[in-house]
Amino acid sequence: MASVNPPRGMRDFLPAEKARRERVLAVIRERYRAHGFDEIETPVVEDYERLHAGIGGDNEKLSFSILRRGLDADGIRAAADDPAALADLGLRYDLTVPLARFYASHRAELPTVFRAIQIAPVWRAERPQKGRYRQFVQCDIDVLGDATPRAEAELITATLDTLDALGLEGAIVRVNDRRALDAMLGGFGFSDAERPGVLITIDKLDKIGADGVVAELRTRGVTPAAVDAFEAFLRRPEPDETLPYGERQIRAALPDDVPDEVVAHLVGLGEAVGAARPDISDVPLVFDPFLVRGMGYYTGTIFELAHPSVGYALGGGGRYDGMIGRFLGTDVPAVGFSIGFERIVDLVEASEDASAAAIVLVHDADIPVAELLSLKAAFVAEGARVRLERRTKNLKPILERAVDDGYTAFAIVGAGATRAALEVKPLA
Amino acid sequence: MASVNPPRGMRDFLPAEKARRERVLAVIRERYRAHGFDEIETPVVEDYERLHAGIGGDNEKLSFSILRRGLDADGIRAAADDPAALADLGLRYDLTVPLARFYASHRAELPTVFRAIQIAPVWRAERPQKGRYRQFVQCDIDVLGDATPRAEAELITATLDTLDALGLEGAIVRVNDRRALDAMLGGFGFSDAERPGVLITIDKLDKIGADGVVAELRTRGVTPAAVDAFEAFLRRPEPDETLPYGERQIRAALPDDVPDEVVAHLVGLGEAVGAARPDISDVPLVFDPFLVRGMGYYTGTIFELAHPSVGYALGGGGRYDGMIGRFLGTDVPAVGFSIGFERIVDLVEASEDASAAAIVLVHDADIPVAELLSLKAAFVAEGARVRLERRTKNLKPILERAVDDGYTAFAIVGAGATRAALEVKPLA
Repeated sequence: MASVNPPRGMRDFLPAEKARRERVLAVIRERYRAHGFDEIETPVVEDYERLHAGIGGDNEKLSFSILRRGLDADGIRAAADDPAALADLGLRYDLTVPLARFYASHRAELPTVFRAIQIAPVWRAERPQKGRYRQFVQCDIDVLGDATPRAEAELITATLDTLDALGLEGAIVRVNDRRALDAMLGGFGFSDAERPGVLITIDKLDKIGADGVVAELRTRGVTPAAVDAFEAFLRRPEPDETLPYGERQIRAALPDDVPDEVVAHLVGLGEAVGAARPDISDVPLVFDPFLVRGMGYYTGTIFELAHPSVGYALGGGGRYDGMIGRFLGTDVPAVGFSIGFERIVDLVEASEDASAAAIVLVHDADIPVAELLSLKAAFVAEGARVRLERRTKNLKPILERAVDDGYTAFAIVGAGATRAALEVKPLA
Repeated sequence: MASVNPPRGMRDFLPAEKARRERVLAVIRERYRAHGFDEIETPVVEDYERLHAGIGGDNEKLSFSILRRGLDADGIRAAADDPAALADLGLRYDLTVPLARFYASHRAELPTVFRAIQIAPVWRAERPQKGRYRQFVQCDIDVLGDATPRAEAELITATLDTLDALGLEGAIVRVNDRRALDAMLGGFGFSDAERPGVLITIDKLDKIGADGVVAELRTRGVTPAAVDAFEAFLRRPEPDETLPYGERQIRAALPDDVPDEVVAHLVGLGEAVGAARPDISDVPLVFDPFLVRGMGYYTGTIFELAHPSVGYALGGGGRYDGMIGRFLGTDVPAVGFSIGFERIVDLVEASEDASAAAIVLVHDADIPVAELLSLKAAFVAEGARVRLERRTKNLKPILERAVDDGYTAFAIVGAGATRAALEVKPLA
């Protein structure tokens, strides 16, 4: 007989944890909705070909594939050399591929500028390890159909507002632009072919430092003079860190050859975020000329969500103006943010609403069923949440679990008890 | 390139429909929670062996199987004759198998009487047809660890209360007991071996009527005298339909040889439901001695949820005291209800809360981004839900879609607009 544990790398959620997750989800839903984001849902499976079209990067290799129905042993042997003959569907590994397909399918029914939110599980057959699971919830927010910095500003504003509502005030967004990176690397003398590899190394700056990045670039076999130029730029005197986010700071942080339109987009984004959060004195943006973000499909702005309480990013995203066109045939500007739902759930308190009445009725074994259910109904009618527990010699485990599950009061119920006469006591 | 439609038999949910579904889900969650049901979640995939252990009935054949990772062409050929070598996981086809596994895994952490609710998608590779999908949401409510009629009564009470809260008042529950069916068929003279087939035929009574059932039984090759006895019972004078649910009515509807303990359980259930719904004069139960329910694992009470507005059942369930033991090794009494979420979503109005402020700001193309986002932020801060739409010559399509998506007001925004000076108009 198979184990009673969930499949490898996957989790069961017990009541207290499930309730916590649902509370966090409810806040996320409500806040993005207020900012005009529309929730959509797609099936958890997508066509195999769709999931293996080169958009998913490394995640394509981690995809779970679903066997075609109706294949007999001969059919399976015949399909052994052709993955797409053996499997016709797969579990999605991200929410970006489904969104692009959804948009291509339903564009005529959607607003011109479509602000989408999806909160849903994805699956990746990664080696399980602490904090990394094979099924986990992603929360993706995207603006399709808007090429202006307004799209980024709406995403960032709604996201910071959501974090505030979850008690994670003080988050900031690190910002860069792939076009700025590209112009910078081109200015140093890296060839087009060298740049993707160079970006992979630069992406490690936080982990291995400037020395490590320069050393790794020297082993890459890329244009040595370009590495020299990059090193000189990397080791230049630190730009003035007191400058607030804006044109002066961005220009100071970049070489001179970055196109004006890129700088203008980044500046416009800061102005819009500032206007949308007038109560916050500092714009919660930090320009970081070395921010890379992994996915190959980014074409413009890229960003990463950071919170002072943790050393890792809480989310990230960027512009991917080329992708929708691969599905639709017409290019549509697009920018998105993927929020690390699992990381956020671990950070927030999201305690029960302690003011909500939630009572455990601890009853004797011999109390008539009808009497007990009549009492339960009386509390439910008052708006309370009610759990029945049979009385045991030691009440402690019952009451402790009740506290864990968010109950706030209890009463001991014997035969003949009435609502009016019942003594309701608060739980510790 | 693959189609941009969702996979065969599966659906995308656009914003208005997704919002409707979430509103229905929120009511269901809230009501069952009030009645002391704890929500749990399990992974969407389970071990292949678990899904093919004979518990799922016909659904096992409709299961989507997930290919083992890391099989090369030779490995696939070698596994061609062994489904469990080729696939190690599958998408769940119901929520009962996962619940039994969950309970066996976590019993020590759960209350003695565990009231569980799961609301989650399941997958079945059925031939798609109108109203039948390959991915659909099930809503299962179960009480584990309680052998008394209290369990059935809590399930039924919470379910009727939930339907009331969804605007589906007046639902009733048809009730029977597998042990009553068994005693009845034994009394007529059907052998143990004949009974499962006879039940399949009796289950069609609503569709093919008494004549059809008797005719089909005669072609089954079962004991002819037993069919005669059954026919005589079926064609007996109708029992007094004015009798309310209770011992007299149940005894009148059954042959004499049904065990007293079965009748007592059914009577106790009615008393408990009556006590829990004191405001309703009639107990919303109907005893139906010919109710069968399909699944083989039922061992006692069975029931079906009906609503006067539709001819099909909105849900059903029963006692399955034997199943948990197959996972745990120790028998645990269990009774569950599966609510037809998709059918209920189709029935309920679940309109937006019209009192909630939701405004579309229709803006000129040339308005500065910062100005527009500042205006949006002002409305969000007031508690409104806000969508930005660029002004077009014909406003009608924009405003119509806004109504569909639940927006209640709009304003035309030109450059220099301020919150105070803006004219907010109601949407039709």
